[in-house]
Amino acid sequence: MDVYEFAKSLIKDAGDFIETRRLEGFEVLRKTGPHDLVTPVDKETESFIYNRIKAQFPEHKIVGEETYGKEVTELSGYTWIVDPIDGTVNFINQNDNFAISVGIYKDNEPFCGFVYDVSNKVLYHAKAGEGAYRDTKRLNEVKYQSLENTIVGLSHKWLLKEDVKDAFTELVVKARSVRNRGSAALDFTYVAEGKYGAAVFYKLFPWDFAGGRIIANELGIKVVTLTNEEVPVLEASSIVAGHKDLVDEILEIFNNDTFKENHDKLYKK
Amino acid sequence: MDVYEFAKSLIKDAGDFIETRRLEGFEVLRKTGPHDLVTPVDKETESFIYNRIKAQFPEHKIVGEETYGKEVTELSGYTWIVDPIDGTVNFINQNDNFAISVGIYKDNEPFCGFVYDVSNKVLYHAKAGEGAYRDTKRLNEVKYQSLENTIVGLSHKWLLKEDVKDAFTELVVKARSVRNRGSAALDFTYVAEGKYGAAVFYKLFPWDFAGGRIIANELGIKVVTLTNEEVPVLEASSIVAGHKDLVDEILEIFNNDTFKENHDKLYKK
Repeated sequence: MDVYEFAKSLIKDAGDFIETRRLEGFEVLRKTGPHDLVTPVDKETESFIYNRIKAQFPEHKIVGEETYGKEVTELSGYTWIVDPIDGTVNFINQNDNFAISVGIYKDNEPFCGFVYDVSNKVLYHAKAGEGAYRDTKRLNEVKYQSLENTIVGLSHKWLLKEDVKDAFTELVVKARSVRNRGSAALDFTYVAEGKYGAAVFYKLFPWDFAGGRIIANELGIKVVTLTNEEVPVLEASSIVAGHKDLVDEILEIFNNDTFKENHDKLYKK
Repeated sequence: MDVYEFAKSLIKDAGDFIETRRLEGFEVLRKTGPHDLVTPVDKETESFIYNRIKAQFPEHKIVGEETYGKEVTELSGYTWIVDPIDGTVNFINQNDNFAISVGIYKDNEPFCGFVYDVSNKVLYHAKAGEGAYRDTKRLNEVKYQSLENTIVGLSHKWLLKEDVKDAFTELVVKARSVRNRGSAALDFTYVAEGKYGAAVFYKLFPWDFAGGRIIANELGIKVVTLTNEEVPVLEASSIVAGHKDLVDEILEIFNNDTFKENHDKLYKK
Protein backbone atom coordinates (compact mmCIF):
# COMPACT_ATOMS: atom_id res chain seq x y z
CA MET A 1 0.00 0.00 0.00
CA ASP A 2 1.20 3.49 -0.84
CA VAL A 3 2.56 5.07 2.35
CA TYR A 4 1.67 8.66 1.36
CA GLU A 5 -1.96 7.82 0.56
CA PHE A 6 -2.25 5.60 3.63
CA ALA A 7 -0.96 8.45 5.84
CA LYS A 8 -3.42 10.97 4.37
CA SER A 9 -6.34 8.72 5.06
CA LEU A 10 -5.09 7.77 8.53
CA ILE A 11 -4.60 11.40 9.57
CA LYS A 12 -8.13 12.36 8.56
CA ASP A 13 -9.47 9.37 10.49
CA ALA A 14 -7.42 10.50 13.49
CA GLY A 15 -9.02 13.95 13.17
CA ASP A 16 -12.47 12.34 13.28
CA PHE A 17 -11.33 10.33 16.31
CA ILE A 18 -10.34 13.56 18.11
CA GLU A 19 -13.70 15.18 17.35
CA THR A 20 -15.63 12.15 18.57
CA ARG A 21 -13.48 11.71 21.64
CA ARG A 22 -13.78 15.41 22.49
CA LEU A 23 -17.55 15.18 22.72
CA GLU A 24 -17.24 12.53 25.41
CA GLY A 25 -15.31 14.97 27.62
CA PHE A 26 -11.78 14.73 28.96
CA GLU A 27 -9.55 15.75 31.83
CA VAL A 28 -6.77 18.33 31.55
CA LEU A 29 -3.46 17.24 33.08
CA ARG A 30 -0.24 19.12 33.73
CA LYS A 31 3.03 17.91 32.27
CA THR A 32 5.86 20.19 33.46
CA GLY A 33 3.70 23.05 34.77
CA PRO A 34 0.55 25.16 34.31
CA HIS A 35 1.53 26.20 30.76
CA ASP A 36 2.40 22.68 29.61
CA LEU A 37 -0.75 20.61 29.45
CA VAL A 38 -1.87 17.30 28.07
CA THR A 39 -5.15 15.43 27.87
CA PRO A 40 -5.99 11.75 27.57
CA VAL A 41 -7.13 12.61 24.02
CA ASP A 42 -3.54 13.44 23.06
CA LYS A 43 -2.38 10.02 24.22
CA GLU A 44 -5.33 8.10 22.82
CA THR A 45 -4.94 9.77 19.43
CA GLU A 46 -1.27 8.90 19.38
CA SER A 47 -2.16 5.26 20.14
CA PHE A 48 -4.86 5.33 17.46
CA ILE A 49 -2.26 6.42 14.91
CA TYR A 50 0.41 4.05 16.25
CA ASN A 51 -1.85 1.02 16.12
CA ARG A 52 -3.08 1.73 12.61
CA ILE A 53 0.47 2.14 11.30
CA LYS A 54 1.69 -1.00 13.06
CA ALA A 55 -1.23 -3.04 11.67
CA GLN A 56 -0.38 -2.00 8.12
CA PHE A 57 3.40 -1.58 8.31
CA PRO A 58 4.75 -3.52 11.31
CA GLU A 59 8.34 -2.67 10.39
CA HIS A 60 7.86 1.12 10.41
CA LYS A 61 9.33 3.04 13.36
CA ILE A 62 7.15 5.61 15.13
CA VAL A 63 8.26 8.54 17.29
CA GLY A 64 5.39 10.31 19.09
CA GLU A 65 5.16 13.28 21.42
CA GLU A 66 3.39 11.41 24.18
CA THR A 67 4.38 7.77 24.42
CA TYR A 68 6.14 6.01 21.60
CA GLY A 69 9.57 5.83 20.08
CA LYS A 70 11.79 7.75 22.47
CA GLU A 71 14.34 4.98 21.78
CA VAL A 72 14.50 5.75 18.05
CA THR A 73 17.89 7.25 17.16
CA GLU A 74 18.33 6.53 13.47
CA LEU A 75 16.29 6.87 10.30
CA SER A 76 16.78 3.66 8.32
CA GLY A 77 13.63 2.31 6.69
CA TYR A 78 10.45 4.30 7.38
CA THR A 79 10.22 6.52 10.47
CA TRP A 80 7.04 8.41 11.39
CA ILE A 81 7.37 11.45 13.65
CA VAL A 82 3.95 12.22 15.09
CA ASP A 83 2.34 14.98 17.13
CA PRO A 84 -1.23 13.77 17.72
CA ILE A 85 -2.36 17.25 18.89
CA ASP A 86 -0.09 20.21 18.24
CA GLY A 87 -1.59 23.20 20.08
CA THR A 88 -3.05 21.27 23.01
CA VAL A 89 -4.02 24.46 24.88
CA ASN A 90 -6.00 25.63 21.85
CA PHE A 91 -7.60 22.19 21.62
CA ILE A 92 -8.67 22.43 25.26
CA ASN A 93 -9.77 26.08 25.34
CA GLN A 94 -10.82 26.80 21.75
CA ASN A 95 -11.57 23.58 19.92
CA ASP A 96 -9.82 25.43 17.12
CA ASN A 97 -6.28 26.26 15.99
CA PHE A 98 -4.77 22.84 16.64
CA ALA A 99 -3.34 20.23 14.30
CA ILE A 100 -2.15 16.70 13.78
CA SER A 101 1.45 16.86 12.55
CA VAL A 102 3.20 13.95 10.87
CA GLY A 103 6.57 13.78 9.12
CA ILE A 104 7.75 10.56 7.51
CA TYR A 105 11.40 9.85 6.72
CA LYS A 106 12.55 7.06 4.44
CA ASP A 107 16.15 5.87 4.63
CA ASN A 108 17.41 9.09 6.19
CA GLU A 109 15.61 11.34 3.70
CA PRO A 110 12.40 13.36 4.05
CA PHE A 111 9.64 11.34 2.41
CA CYS A 112 6.36 13.12 3.09
CA GLY A 113 4.83 15.62 5.54
CA PHE A 114 1.35 16.45 6.84
CA VAL A 115 -0.28 19.12 8.97
CA TYR A 116 -4.00 18.60 9.48
CA ASP A 117 -5.99 21.60 10.71
CA VAL A 118 -8.56 19.45 12.48
CA SER A 119 -11.35 21.91 13.29
CA ASN A 120 -11.35 23.27 9.73
CA LYS A 121 -10.74 19.85 8.17
CA VAL A 122 -7.95 21.21 5.96
CA LEU A 123 -4.98 18.94 5.19
CA TYR A 124 -1.63 20.41 4.19
CA HIS A 125 0.58 17.73 2.69
CA ALA A 126 3.66 17.17 0.57
CA LYS A 127 5.65 14.31 -0.86
CA ALA A 128 9.32 15.12 -1.32
CA GLY A 129 9.99 16.38 -4.84
CA GLU A 130 6.32 16.47 -5.82
CA GLY A 131 5.16 19.82 -4.45
CA ALA A 132 2.98 20.81 -1.49
CA TYR A 133 -0.78 20.97 -1.33
CA ARG A 134 -3.60 22.44 0.69
CA ASP A 135 -6.15 19.65 0.21
CA THR A 136 -6.13 19.27 -3.57
CA LYS A 137 -4.80 22.78 -4.36
CA ARG A 138 -1.11 23.02 -5.13
CA LEU A 139 0.66 25.72 -3.14
CA ASN A 140 3.02 28.20 -4.80
CA GLU A 141 6.63 28.78 -3.80
CA VAL A 142 6.81 31.54 -1.20
CA LYS A 143 7.78 35.06 -2.25
CA TYR A 144 10.36 37.26 -0.59
CA GLN A 145 9.18 40.10 1.62
CA SER A 146 11.63 42.04 3.74
CA LEU A 147 11.26 41.85 7.51
CA GLU A 148 9.77 45.34 7.72
CA ASN A 149 7.10 44.28 5.22
CA THR A 150 6.13 40.96 6.70
CA ILE A 151 4.38 39.26 9.60
CA VAL A 152 6.35 36.86 11.78
CA GLY A 153 4.88 34.12 13.96
CA LEU A 154 6.39 34.27 17.45
CA SER A 155 5.32 33.18 20.93
CA HIS A 156 5.12 35.96 23.53
CA LYS A 157 7.06 33.81 25.96
CA TRP A 158 10.44 34.37 24.30
CA LEU A 159 10.09 38.09 25.06
CA LEU A 160 10.04 37.15 28.74
CA LYS A 161 13.05 34.83 28.77
CA GLU A 162 15.76 36.92 30.38
CA ASP A 163 18.82 35.56 28.57
CA VAL A 164 17.44 35.84 25.02
CA LYS A 165 14.77 38.54 25.26
CA ASP A 166 16.93 41.26 23.68
CA ALA A 167 17.21 39.43 20.37
CA PHE A 168 13.50 38.52 20.26
CA THR A 169 12.59 42.10 21.16
CA GLU A 170 14.67 43.36 18.24
CA LEU A 171 12.81 40.92 15.99
CA VAL A 172 9.45 42.33 17.12
CA VAL A 173 10.63 45.90 16.58
CA LYS A 174 11.99 45.21 13.09
CA ALA A 175 9.10 43.10 11.75
CA ARG A 176 6.01 44.74 10.30
CA SER A 177 4.07 42.81 12.89
CA VAL A 178 4.16 39.60 14.92
CA ARG A 179 1.38 37.13 15.69
CA ASN A 180 0.92 34.18 18.00
CA ARG A 181 -1.58 31.49 17.03
CA GLY A 182 -0.42 28.87 19.50
CA SER A 183 0.44 25.93 17.23
CA ALA A 184 3.88 25.52 15.67
CA ALA A 185 2.55 23.10 13.07
CA LEU A 186 -0.08 25.62 11.95
CA ASP A 187 2.57 28.36 11.93
CA PHE A 188 4.36 26.31 9.27
CA THR A 189 1.16 26.23 7.22
CA TYR A 190 0.84 30.02 7.55
CA VAL A 191 4.39 30.37 6.21
CA ALA A 192 3.53 27.91 3.44
CA GLU A 193 0.53 30.02 2.43
CA GLY A 194 2.40 33.33 2.75
CA LYS A 195 0.28 34.54 5.69
CA TYR A 196 3.48 34.77 7.71
CA GLY A 197 6.75 35.66 6.00
CA ALA A 198 8.51 33.61 8.66
CA ALA A 199 7.93 31.72 11.89
CA VAL A 200 10.54 31.80 14.66
CA PHE A 201 10.85 29.40 17.60
CA TYR A 202 13.40 29.24 20.36
CA LYS A 203 12.59 25.66 21.20
CA LEU A 204 10.62 23.04 19.33
CA PHE A 205 10.59 19.27 19.55
CA PRO A 206 10.87 16.95 16.54
CA TRP A 207 7.12 16.19 16.52
CA ASP A 208 6.33 19.93 16.47
CA PHE A 209 8.21 20.58 13.25
CA ALA A 210 8.63 17.25 11.38
CA GLY A 211 5.49 17.58 9.24
CA GLY A 212 5.72 21.31 8.58
CA ARG A 213 9.36 21.16 7.66
CA ILE A 214 8.84 18.59 4.91
CA ILE A 215 5.98 20.69 3.49
CA ALA A 216 8.24 23.77 3.71
CA ASN A 217 10.99 22.01 1.74
CA GLU A 218 8.68 21.87 -1.28
CA LEU A 219 7.96 25.60 -1.31
CA GLY A 220 11.42 27.17 -1.29
CA ILE A 221 11.20 27.76 2.46
CA LYS A 222 14.50 27.64 4.33
CA VAL A 223 14.40 25.96 7.75
CA VAL A 224 17.50 26.36 9.95
CA THR A 225 18.32 26.88 13.62
CA LEU A 226 18.64 30.44 14.95
CA THR A 227 22.41 29.93 14.87
CA ASN A 228 22.19 29.05 11.16
CA GLU A 229 22.82 25.34 11.54
CA GLU A 230 20.97 22.39 10.14
CA VAL A 231 17.89 21.44 12.17
CA PRO A 232 18.28 17.87 13.47
CA VAL A 233 15.49 15.40 12.73
CA LEU A 234 15.24 13.70 16.12
CA GLU A 235 16.30 16.41 18.58
CA ALA A 236 14.84 19.61 20.01
CA SER A 237 15.94 22.72 18.16
CA SER A 238 15.46 26.42 17.64
CA ILE A 239 13.99 27.17 14.24
CA VAL A 240 13.43 29.94 11.75
CA ALA A 241 11.38 29.08 8.67
CA GLY A 242 10.78 31.44 5.75
CA HIS A 243 12.01 32.61 2.36
CA LYS A 244 15.81 32.29 2.35
CA ASP A 245 16.50 36.01 2.02
CA LEU A 246 14.15 36.83 4.87
CA VAL A 247 15.70 34.05 6.97
CA ASP A 248 19.12 35.60 6.35
CA GLU A 249 17.77 38.98 7.50
CA ILE A 250 16.34 37.42 10.67
CA LEU A 251 19.52 35.44 11.40
CA GLU A 252 21.46 38.73 11.48
CA ILE A 253 19.46 39.67 14.60
CA PHE A 254 20.54 36.49 16.36
CA ASN A 255 24.10 36.64 15.10
CA ASN A 256 25.73 37.91 18.30
CA ASP A 257 27.79 36.33 21.04
CA THR A 258 25.27 36.79 23.85
CA PHE A 259 22.52 34.99 21.99
CA LYS A 260 24.80 32.26 20.69
CA GLU A 261 26.23 31.60 24.13
CA ASN A 262 22.80 31.17 25.70
CA HIS A 263 21.56 29.15 22.74
CA ASP A 264 24.55 26.82 23.05
CA LYS A 265 23.94 26.45 26.78
CA LEU A 266 20.47 25.10 25.95
CA TYR A 267 21.42 22.88 23.04
CA LYS A 268 25.04 21.76 23.23
CA LYS A 269 25.46 18.96 25.65
CA MET B 1 -36.36 50.79 7.04
CA ASP B 2 -35.12 48.75 9.97
CA VAL B 3 -31.67 50.05 10.92
CA TYR B 4 -30.39 46.68 12.25
CA GLU B 5 -31.35 44.78 9.10
CA PHE B 6 -30.10 47.58 6.88
CA ALA B 7 -26.72 47.52 8.65
CA LYS B 8 -26.39 43.72 8.32
CA SER B 9 -26.98 43.89 4.60
CA LEU B 10 -24.71 46.92 4.14
CA ILE B 11 -21.82 45.31 6.01
CA LYS B 12 -21.96 42.17 3.88
CA ASP B 13 -22.01 44.33 0.76
CA ALA B 14 -18.99 46.23 2.09
CA GLY B 15 -17.23 42.88 2.58
CA ASP B 16 -17.91 42.04 -1.08
CA PHE B 17 -16.62 45.49 -2.04
CA ILE B 18 -13.35 44.81 -0.18
CA GLU B 19 -12.89 41.44 -1.89
CA THR B 20 -13.54 42.92 -5.35
CA ARG B 21 -11.36 45.93 -4.70
CA ARG B 22 -8.55 43.78 -3.41
CA LEU B 23 -8.31 41.87 -6.66
CA GLU B 24 -7.64 45.13 -8.51
CA GLY B 25 -4.51 45.69 -6.40
CA PHE B 26 -3.71 48.54 -4.03
CA GLU B 27 -0.87 50.53 -2.54
CA VAL B 28 0.24 50.28 1.08
CA LEU B 29 0.73 53.64 2.80
CA ARG B 30 2.20 54.55 6.17
CA LYS B 31 0.15 56.51 8.68
CA THR B 32 2.29 57.22 11.77
CA GLY B 33 5.12 54.75 11.00
CA PRO B 34 6.07 51.33 9.60
CA HIS B 35 3.72 49.47 11.97
CA ASP B 36 0.72 51.73 11.31
CA LEU B 37 -0.46 51.19 7.77
CA VAL B 38 -3.42 52.06 5.64
CA THR B 39 -4.51 51.32 2.08
CA PRO B 40 -6.82 53.11 -0.33
CA VAL B 41 -9.18 50.16 0.21
CA ASP B 42 -9.65 51.21 3.86
CA LYS B 43 -10.71 54.69 2.79
CA GLU B 44 -12.82 53.58 -0.15
CA THR B 45 -14.65 51.03 2.00
CA GLU B 46 -15.37 53.69 4.60
CA SER B 47 -16.77 55.94 1.86
CA PHE B 48 -18.81 53.04 0.48
CA ILE B 49 -20.39 52.55 3.90
CA TYR B 50 -20.77 56.29 4.53
CA ASN B 51 -22.51 56.94 1.23
CA ARG B 52 -24.92 54.04 1.62
CA ILE B 53 -25.91 55.16 5.11
CA LYS B 54 -26.34 58.79 4.05
CA ALA B 55 -28.49 57.79 1.07
CA GLN B 56 -30.84 55.84 3.34
CA PHE B 57 -30.62 57.82 6.58
CA PRO B 58 -29.32 61.34 5.85
CA GLU B 59 -29.74 62.40 9.48
CA HIS B 60 -27.55 59.61 10.94
CA LYS B 61 -24.11 60.64 12.21
CA ILE B 62 -21.09 58.56 11.16
CA VAL B 63 -17.71 58.32 12.84
CA GLY B 64 -15.09 56.40 10.85
CA GLU B 65 -11.47 55.47 11.39
CA GLU B 66 -10.20 57.05 8.22
CA THR B 67 -12.12 60.13 7.16
CA TYR B 68 -15.51 60.91 8.58
CA GLY B 69 -17.02 62.25 11.77
CA LYS B 70 -14.04 63.41 13.82
CA GLU B 71 -16.29 66.36 14.75
CA VAL B 72 -18.95 64.13 16.36
CA THR B 73 -18.97 64.66 20.14
CA GLU B 74 -22.41 63.54 21.25
CA LEU B 75 -24.74 60.60 20.69
CA SER B 76 -28.22 62.03 20.10
CA GLY B 77 -30.19 60.30 17.34
CA TYR B 78 -28.34 57.52 15.52
CA THR B 79 -24.53 57.44 15.51
CA TRP B 80 -22.56 54.83 13.55
CA ILE B 81 -18.98 54.11 14.63
CA VAL B 82 -17.22 52.36 11.77
CA ASP B 83 -13.90 50.62 11.19
CA PRO B 84 -13.94 49.66 7.49
CA ILE B 85 -10.96 47.31 7.93
CA ASP B 86 -9.89 46.34 11.45
CA GLY B 87 -6.62 44.44 11.14
CA THR B 88 -5.24 46.29 8.11
CA VAL B 89 -1.84 44.56 8.32
CA ASN B 90 -3.57 41.17 8.19
CA PHE B 91 -5.66 42.39 5.26
CA ILE B 92 -2.48 43.41 3.41
CA ASN B 93 -0.29 40.41 4.27
CA GLN B 94 -2.77 37.59 4.83
CA ASN B 95 -6.09 38.37 3.18
CA ASP B 96 -7.40 36.79 6.36
CA ASN B 97 -7.98 37.71 10.01
CA PHE B 98 -9.47 41.16 9.38
CA ALA B 99 -12.96 42.53 9.96
CA ILE B 100 -15.45 45.29 9.38
CA SER B 101 -16.53 46.64 12.77
CA VAL B 102 -19.66 48.74 13.28
CA GLY B 103 -21.33 49.92 16.47
CA ILE B 104 -24.55 51.92 16.35
CA TYR B 105 -25.75 54.09 19.22
CA LYS B 106 -29.27 55.48 19.47
CA ASP B 107 -29.95 58.41 21.77
CA ASN B 108 -26.89 57.76 23.92
CA GLU B 109 -27.55 54.04 24.30
CA PRO B 110 -25.98 51.04 22.54
CA PHE B 111 -28.36 49.98 19.78
CA CYS B 112 -26.62 47.27 17.76
CA GLY B 113 -23.13 45.96 17.02
CA PHE B 114 -21.43 44.05 14.19
CA VAL B 115 -18.10 42.39 13.52
CA TYR B 116 -17.81 40.87 10.06
CA ASP B 117 -15.01 38.35 9.53
CA VAL B 118 -14.67 39.17 5.84
CA SER B 119 -12.47 36.35 4.53
CA ASN B 120 -14.61 33.70 6.25
CA LYS B 121 -17.88 35.55 5.55
CA VAL B 122 -19.02 35.18 9.16
CA LEU B 123 -21.09 37.97 10.72
CA TYR B 124 -21.20 38.43 14.47
CA HIS B 125 -24.07 40.72 15.43
CA ALA B 126 -26.26 41.82 18.29
CA LYS B 127 -29.16 44.14 18.95
CA ALA B 128 -29.23 45.49 22.48
CA GLY B 129 -31.43 43.33 24.69
CA GLU B 130 -32.01 40.68 22.04
CA GLY B 131 -28.93 38.49 22.30
CA ALA B 132 -25.84 38.04 20.14
CA TYR B 133 -25.45 35.84 17.09
CA ARG B 134 -22.83 34.25 14.88
CA ASP B 135 -24.69 34.43 11.58
CA THR B 136 -28.00 32.83 12.55
CA LYS B 137 -26.72 30.89 15.57
CA ARG B 138 -27.39 32.44 18.96
CA LEU B 139 -24.28 32.66 21.13
CA ASN B 140 -24.32 31.56 24.77
CA GLU B 141 -23.33 33.72 27.71
CA VAL B 142 -19.64 33.29 28.45
CA LYS B 143 -18.55 31.01 31.28
CA TYR B 144 -16.03 31.87 33.97
CA GLN B 145 -12.54 30.42 33.74
CA SER B 146 -9.80 31.57 36.07
CA LEU B 147 -6.80 33.33 34.55
CA GLU B 148 -4.56 30.28 34.97
CA ASN B 149 -7.11 28.23 33.03
CA THR B 150 -7.75 30.58 30.15
CA ILE B 151 -6.26 32.12 27.02
CA VAL B 152 -5.95 35.91 26.82
CA GLY B 153 -5.68 37.94 23.62
CA LEU B 154 -2.79 40.41 23.88
CA SER B 155 -0.52 42.22 21.44
CA HIS B 156 3.21 41.54 21.86
CA LYS B 157 3.90 45.26 21.66
CA TRP B 158 2.70 46.02 25.19
CA LEU B 159 5.46 43.74 26.51
CA LEU B 160 7.95 46.13 24.92
CA LYS B 161 6.51 49.40 26.23
CA GLU B 162 8.90 50.36 28.98
CA ASP B 163 6.51 52.13 31.38
CA VAL B 164 3.83 49.40 31.45
CA LYS B 165 5.67 46.21 30.50
CA ASP B 166 5.84 44.90 34.07
CA ALA B 167 2.07 44.64 34.38
CA PHE B 168 1.64 43.06 30.95
CA THR B 169 4.46 40.62 31.68
CA GLU B 170 2.69 39.56 34.87
CA LEU B 171 -0.46 38.99 32.83
CA VAL B 172 1.42 36.69 30.43
CA VAL B 173 2.97 34.76 33.32
CA LYS B 174 -0.35 34.28 35.12
CA ALA B 175 -2.51 33.35 32.13
CA ARG B 176 -2.63 29.79 30.85
CA SER B 177 -1.53 31.23 27.53
CA VAL B 178 -1.72 34.38 25.42
CA ARG B 179 -2.37 34.80 21.72
CA ASN B 180 -2.14 37.62 19.19
CA ARG B 181 -4.37 37.48 16.13
CA GLY B 182 -3.89 41.08 15.06
CA SER B 183 -7.48 42.38 14.99
CA ALA B 184 -9.15 43.86 18.07
CA ALA B 185 -12.60 43.40 16.57
CA LEU B 186 -11.95 39.69 15.98
CA ASP B 187 -10.51 39.42 19.49
CA PHE B 188 -13.95 40.47 20.76
CA THR B 189 -15.53 37.68 18.70
CA TYR B 190 -13.09 35.17 20.20
CA VAL B 191 -14.13 36.31 23.68
CA ALA B 192 -17.78 36.09 22.59
CA GLU B 193 -17.26 32.48 21.47
CA GLY B 194 -15.20 31.53 24.51
CA LYS B 195 -11.99 30.96 22.51
CA TYR B 196 -10.34 33.62 24.65
CA GLY B 197 -11.40 34.09 28.26
CA ALA B 198 -10.45 37.74 27.92
CA ALA B 199 -8.86 40.23 25.56
CA VAL B 200 -6.67 43.02 26.91
CA PHE B 201 -5.65 46.21 25.11
CA TYR B 202 -3.57 49.15 26.31
CA LYS B 203 -4.91 51.47 23.64
CA LEU B 204 -7.85 51.14 21.30
CA PHE B 205 -9.81 53.71 19.34
CA PRO B 206 -13.62 53.91 19.33
CA TRP B 207 -13.91 52.28 15.88
CA ASP B 208 -11.78 49.34 17.09
CA PHE B 209 -14.13 48.41 19.91
CA ALA B 210 -17.58 49.91 19.18
CA GLY B 211 -19.01 46.86 17.42
CA GLY B 212 -17.43 44.21 19.61
CA ARG B 213 -18.43 45.94 22.80
CA ILE B 214 -22.14 45.97 21.95
CA ILE B 215 -21.96 42.27 21.05
CA ALA B 216 -20.11 41.63 24.34
CA ASN B 217 -22.86 43.38 26.31
CA GLU B 218 -25.31 40.68 25.25
CA LEU B 219 -23.15 37.80 26.50
CA GLY B 220 -22.41 38.76 30.09
CA ILE B 221 -18.99 40.08 29.09
CA LYS B 222 -17.68 42.95 31.18
CA VAL B 223 -15.84 45.69 29.27
CA VAL B 224 -13.94 48.28 31.34
CA THR B 225 -10.67 50.20 31.19
CA LEU B 226 -7.57 48.70 32.79
CA THR B 227 -8.07 51.16 35.65
CA ASN B 228 -11.60 49.79 36.14
CA GLU B 229 -13.45 52.76 34.73
CA GLU B 230 -16.21 52.96 32.18
CA VAL B 231 -14.95 52.84 28.60
CA PRO B 232 -15.94 56.05 26.78
CA VAL B 233 -17.84 55.71 23.49
CA LEU B 234 -16.02 58.35 21.45
CA GLU B 235 -12.51 58.39 22.91
CA ALA B 236 -9.44 56.15 22.87
CA SER B 237 -9.24 53.82 25.84
CA SER B 238 -7.51 50.85 27.41
CA ILE B 239 -9.81 47.84 27.59
CA VAL B 240 -10.24 44.49 29.23
CA ALA B 241 -13.16 42.36 28.04
CA GLY B 242 -14.16 39.04 29.59
CA HIS B 243 -16.33 37.30 32.17
CA LYS B 244 -16.69 39.69 35.12
CA ASP B 245 -14.87 37.48 37.62
CA LEU B 246 -11.96 36.99 35.24
CA VAL B 247 -11.88 40.72 34.52
CA ASP B 248 -11.66 41.37 38.27
CA GLU B 249 -8.74 38.93 38.48
CA ILE B 250 -6.97 40.70 35.60
CA LEU B 251 -7.64 44.17 37.01
CA GLU B 252 -5.78 43.18 40.18
CA ILE B 253 -2.60 42.94 38.08
CA PHE B 254 -3.02 46.52 36.88
CA ASN B 255 -4.12 47.85 40.26
CA ASN B 256 -0.84 49.50 41.25
CA ASP B 257 0.41 53.07 41.35
CA THR B 258 3.08 52.71 38.66
CA PHE B 259 0.64 51.39 36.10
CA LYS B 260 -2.09 53.87 37.00
CA GLU B 261 0.29 56.81 36.82
CA ASN B 262 1.49 55.88 33.33
CA HIS B 263 -2.03 55.05 32.22
CA ASP B 264 -3.26 58.43 33.42
CA LYS B 265 -0.39 60.18 31.63
CA LEU B 266 -1.68 58.66 28.39
CA TYR B 267 -5.37 59.23 28.95
CA LYS B 268 -6.04 62.16 31.30
CA LYS B 269 -5.59 65.41 29.49
